[in-house]
Formats: sequence, structure tokens, C-alpha cells
Amino acid sequence: MTNRIKTRADCQTLDQNDPLAPLRCLFDLPPGVIYLDGNSLGARPHAALQRAQQVIQQEWGKDLIRSWNKAGWFELPSRLGNKLAPLIGAAENEVVVTDSTSINLFKLLAAALQIQAAKPDAASRKVIVTERDNFPTDIYMAQGLTEWLDRGYRIHLIDTPQELSTAVNAETAILMLTHVNYRSGHLHDMQAVTRAAQEQGALVLWDLAHSAGAVPLDLHAANADFAVGCTYKYINGGPGAPAFAWIAPRHHAQFRQPLSGWWGHRAPFTMQPTFAPAEGIRRALCGTQPIVSLAMVECGLDIFAQTDMQAVRRKSLALTDLFIALVESRCAGLGLTLVTPRPHEQRGSHVSFTHAHGYAVMRELIARGVIGDYREPQVMRFGFTPLYTQFTDVWDAVDTLHRILADQDYEINAPQEAVT
Amino acid sequence: MTNRIKTRADCQTLDQNDPLAPLRCLFDLPPGVIYLDGNSLGARPHAALQRAQQVIQQEWGKDLIRSWNKAGWFELPSRLGNKLAPLIGAAENEVVVTDSTSINLFKLLAAALQIQAAKPDAASRKVIVTERDNFPTDIYMAQGLTEWLDRGYRIHLIDTPQELSTAVNAETAILMLTHVNYRSGHLHDMQAVTRAAQEQGALVLWDLAHSAGAVPLDLHAANADFAVGCTYKYINGGPGAPAFAWIAPRHHAQFRQPLSGWWGHRAPFTMQPTFAPAEGIRRALCGTQPIVSLAMVECGLDIFAQTDMQAVRRKSLALTDLFIALVESRCAGLGLTLVTPRPHEQRGSHVSFTHAHGYAVMRELIARGVIGDYREPQVMRFGFTPLYTQFTDVWDAVDTLHRILADQDYEINAPQEAVT
Repeated sequence: MTNRIKTRADCQTLDQNDPLAPLRCLFDLPPGVIYLDGNSLGARPHAALQRAQQVIQQEWGKDLIRSWNKAGWFELPSRLGNKLAPLIGAAENEVVVTDSTSINLFKLLAAALQIQAAKPDAASRKVIVTERDNFPTDIYMAQGLTEWLDRGYRIHLIDTPQELSTAVNAETAILMLTHVNYRSGHLHDMQAVTRAAQEQGALVLWDLAHSAGAVPLDLHAANADFAVGCTYKYINGGPGAPAFAWIAPRHHAQFRQPLSGWWGHRAPFTMQPTFAPAEGIRRALCGTQPIVSLAMVECGLDIFAQTDMQAVRRKSLALTDLFIALVESRCAGLGLTLVTPRPHEQRGSHVSFTHAHGYAVMRELIARGVIGDYREPQVMRFGFTPLYTQFTDVWDAVDTLHRILADQDYEINAPQEAVT
Repeated sequence: MTNRIKTRADCQTLDQNDPLAPLRCLFDLPPGVIYLDGNSLGARPHAALQRAQQVIQQEWGKDLIRSWNKAGWFELPSRLGNKLAPLIGAAENEVVVTDSTSINLFKLLAAALQIQAAKPDAASRKVIVTERDNFPTDIYMAQGLTEWLDRGYRIHLIDTPQELSTAVNAETAILMLTHVNYRSGHLHDMQAVTRAAQEQGALVLWDLAHSAGAVPLDLHAANADFAVGCTYKYINGGPGAPAFAWIAPRHHAQFRQPLSGWWGHRAPFTMQPTFAPAEGIRRALCGTQPIVSLAMVECGLDIFAQTDMQAVRRKSLALTDLFIALVESRCAGLGLTLVTPRPHEQRGSHVSFTHAHGYAVMRELIARGVIGDYREPQVMRFGFTPLYTQFTDVWDAVDTLHRILADQDYEINAPQEAVT
């Protein structure tokens, strides 16, 4: 298809024929902006404002403390978890929306280590394998956990996915991977990687931060052990919205985690002085949740209920294919190098190019209303979110990128600000 | 003063002369409700709705990803921490608003254990002392931490504050106390308890969940080591709003905690694969925060900026004195027993009575618009929040309580729902 797109009018035709096009109006998209950063912070569903107003005015303001029961605040982590489950190939009572991705990863990683420690070969199985290029907080949390446990666990950082086949072996306790790499957009084959690691006796923990709502996921089909993920990227839950945690049902009974707060207690309101874990997935909970931020996650999830992940994926691949093709044809010779893998089965829903002045170019793009983001080193990242990104957005973004590069119209020495 | 209050008109006079009375109009207080549960969930500042709308519509909706810098989202935990600091006798750059109380307690407790473990007598200093009657999640988190560390730490639960003098000794690593007991309202003498524990070589961690915004606090004058607390009770930050953590500056350099996520990194955007803690209090951070819930905390803090904690305390004691006196005179012989200590210096800002049918009586009170809450076993809890509780509210609440008890108009066998 991509080869037939020669003009902006061709993109308009694609938009007209896009079955997901009607969903775009459910989002607040500011005029004059082409938003290609939904992989970092999803755009706002219009409904989120109304939902927040309902929680703040009625549930908090009028019903006050009674809302813990009446509005179901206490059940929100599991109710939203059940609503999120279909997006990741999970079933009822396997997912909670709670805390941050970092904290959920800590809980699940701790539990996974404990499950492994109960096995006969525990003494020789002390390695957590992950990628040096994993999102840093995942590595930091594993470092924090293993240093505190001080039981000889070590973290083995691999530099390429190809190393997995040798790096994961009889010494591996846990393989912990981010399914879609935050920088390159590289997508692991979840099923094959999980199977190979499990054949070595490892447990597999997936971080779905850049996958949930971006690519079809089937944790059960992949026989994954644990997963965490983010709701404020492709799921459009709002800035810093609570993350999610999934535990394979076969691990529920043995699952224990050190952040054993009262929300994870079997009977939190009996006020017992001894912790006893709740049945099932609620044992992954810890303390009281930020209700307003949590409640808005539902608005993002409700939009996904109007489509399916196969349709989302079809459009995602069409958008990323088009972007790559247009950049490589129109910006040829202007210093851009594709970082993201070309094969569909190795790619998530964002595309990255390096450029020697990547930061300065991205700054200029943003100044002209094309919002992507920048990640060290030299990586310009463009996220494509099929619920609201149009094919004409792709055309216009490449047009702007081409003009900036062709005119060398960017400030090389611009002071560098943090870009979250 | 209390003895001179004989009629509702006397209470009206008190309200007319109350210097804090003008602050009440800053809150959304539903008509027909006497809200005596601000110790559990503070009432809504009117400004919170507008603040949430600003974050959702402008910062999220229009400015999108740029708000991390432009709206200062990334700095919110420390900026709000600085605004909260005066309420607890802390200084600039010593407080962050982040995560939940349970999780912050885990971080600080872990760091405190590590500081103690570096001392010469570490081998014989393995006990965490706390109260059996502490809020359960504090005990659960200590259990989670010590079981996972598996280094011989044990938790010693005392049954009365009087046991502190013998329970805290040369074997004590940490004394961890909630300053105002969640159920009884008992207030510890922070300065004396801290000094006595430190003389034994212990570090002292205070949970200020029921103190911050309720009683004057001076962590520096008390020479405390660590503190955590809640923003959704007396500080009126909103349901489940992120909690706070304070670390005495003398501990900043040694402070290390296992929840070492990217927000606690020295240079989070350089994407290094090795954790290096930020300077100062930001090393207590972990992952991305729920921005909408976090931002609303400022509205509660801004109201405190219009008064001072001495004025709040004066009114708090007047309200609780009046409530105790009226209940004991008007409801004499009706089965109520005061749980809360009478001396001012031993009392926070809520008052508890037991009744054999406490749950049923509280249920009936709530049905009649007097909202307190219930805690096992048999405890009816009434919170007095000087920013919006009136003296006539106290009169009317006791009036309703008296009628219910005198008429025995409550359903003893009502099915018991969880009350958060």
C-alpha cells in the first residue's frame, strides 16, 4: 500500500476510508498540533474531564467518605483491571490497576524470585537477565531489589536480542524484558522468547509499557508468568495514571511480595496486626490509591471497547510503514538513520530515527507543532496512535521534518531541557 | 470554656467569634450533613475542581507532553513538599509528596535499617518496636520488609505507650510510631519519645497520617529521623492523594532505599543503565506520579497558608473538649465509654467512644446525616477539622447521637459493610 501514496490527497483518501476515524473525535486534540507522542503521554479522551468532575464534585465533594463503598473506590483497581484484561489477553481477576510501573515491577520481580528460590536448583539459579537498553527504571528496580536482598542475585545485561539464546540458561532465575523497546521500537516475539526461557527453567516478566493498547497481546497464549504496564501512554489514562500488574493464575497461590500493605490484606477492615494476603490478584495491591487519577483510566479503556486490537494494529502498521517510507524518500541524504526494525513482526507502534543533531531537530519540530520526543543518544521518536493519528498527520509531519532538515533550520547549540 | 456551653445558642456565639470561620466557605460541604470524618477523608476545597480542570483541560489536553516541563509536573513532588514543610516543622528540600503512605514507610524503614546496619553494634540491634494498635498497614509493611530481608530483624509490638520505656533498648534498631493513633486519638509526646529512643541508639520514624494538619508539628525541634504522612485526611488533598515523606537532612547522604526508580535517579533523562541516587530528598522518589491527584494536594495546602497550626490547634481542642463534655453530660448512662485521652497533650483532633453496638449506632448516625466512622472493635470515631467544623456542628451531632441512643433507634443486626 505504502508505495501507492504519492500525495497528501492520497493520505486524505486513506483517512476517509479508515474504520477507526470516528474514534478521533473522542479525543481532545489541540488545533495546529500533530501529536506523535502518544507513546509517551496519550491524548486526553474528552470523557476524562467529565469523569474527573463526577469524582471530584459528587463522589468526593457530596458523598465524601461514603464513596469508598457507594462509588466503589475500593474496588477500582480490580474493576479497571478486568476492563483492561482483554487488551493484554488476560482474563477476569488477573489484573489490577495500581501504583506505578516501577513499583509493580518490584512486587512481581520479588515474587518471581521467591517462587524460584523454592525450587531444588535455586542455589545455582541467581541471574536476572534483561537488556541494557531496557527502560532504565526497570533495571534500577531490579538493582534495588537484588542489592537489598543481598543473596547473590546478579543482573545480566544483554546488548542485543540475539544474545537471549545464550544469555538465558540454567542459571537464569528471571527473564525480564520490555516487550516493545522504548527507544528503538523493537518488538520481541513474546511467545517464542517466553517458551525458550521457560525451557531453561526461567520465569518471564514482561513490561508492556509500550505494548498495551499499541499491539495485540495474548499473555495466556504466550504462557507468560508476570506482566506490568502503563496506562498513560497508548491507553490514554492521563498523566502519571496508575499502572497495571498481571499475574498468571498458576502463580496466584504462591505469590508473595514485600510491599504488603493493607489493600493487599485478606480482610483489611478487621485491622489485624498480622499480614495475610488477599486471595488472587488483590495481593498485588499495597496502599490507598489516587482515586481521581485512577478513575480517569476508565475513559481510555472505554474507547478501546469500541474497537479491537487487530484493527488498531492494522492501522498502526499502515501509519508506521507510511512514515518510514515517506521519511526515507523525502528526507533521503539529510542525515536520518532508521533505528526501528523494518519487519512488522519486530516493530511496535513508534518509529525512531537518529540524527547527529536529533535534539535540535526535535526542538524545531515541536516549535512548528509536530510533537515527537527525543531520547539520548541522538534518537528522535515518533509515536503513532491509531485511535487518533491520521494519515494526513504522517504526511504533514514528514513535510515539516523535510523542510527543517533541508533548510538546516535548527539551533544546534540549544540548551537541552529534560524531555520526559 | 466548655462548662459555659449550655445551649445551641452558646455554640452559635462561639462560631461567630471563631477566627477560622471564614475558611469554611473555601470547602464544599453538602447541605444536611455534619461531616465528622475529615480525619479519614478531608472535605473538598472548592479550588480543587478548578485545579483539576486546569490540569486536565490545559496541561494534559492542550499542552500534552510539554507539560512535564512547562507545567512543572516533574517538579511537583518537591514543590508540594516545600509547601507542606511548614505544617510539619520541616525546611525546604526535606519533603516530597509522592506514592502512598505504605510505600513511603517501606522506603524510609528500609533506609533506616541500612543506616543502623552500618554501625558497630548492628549485630545486636535487630528489633523494630511499634504498637500493636498502630494502623495495620504500618505493621504489615514492616513485616513485608523484614521477612524479605531475612536478616534476623524482628518486630516487637507493644500494647500500651507505657511499655515504650522498657521496650526501646539497646536491641532496638527502629522505633516506628504513628504520632496520633488512628483509633483512640492518643497523641505521643514526639519530642520526649524521640529523645528517649535516640538515647538508646534507636532511629525514630513517625507516621503523621493523623497529625499533619491536625496538630502543630516540629520535626526539627523533636530531632526526628524520618517521617511519613497522608495528604487526604486533614490536608484535604483528595481521595487517595499521594502521601509525603520527610528525611532529616543529617541522613540525606546515607539514605538509600530499594524502590530505586528513575524519578529518584541523579540524572533520569540520561538513561544510564546503573542507578545513582539524586542529591537530597528526591532520592526518596520512585516512579511516575499520578499528576491530577497530586496537583490537587496544593489546594488543601493553600488553605493552611491562610492560618497557622497554633490557631488550628486552639480550635481543635475547643471542639474536642466540647464534644467530650456534651456527650458525657447529655448521653450519660447510654453505654458510651470515652477511648480518647482527656489531657490535651495526649490527644489529636479526633475523639472516639466505644459502644456495644457501635457499628449499628454509627450506621444510624450516618443515615441521619452525621458522618463519623467506625473502627473495629466497637469504636465510633469522630473527627474535628477546625478549617470547616463548627461548634454548632458539635452540638447538633451530640443531639442526634443522644436521640438515637435514648430511643435505642438503631438496627443491631445490620449487615456490616467495610468502612474505609
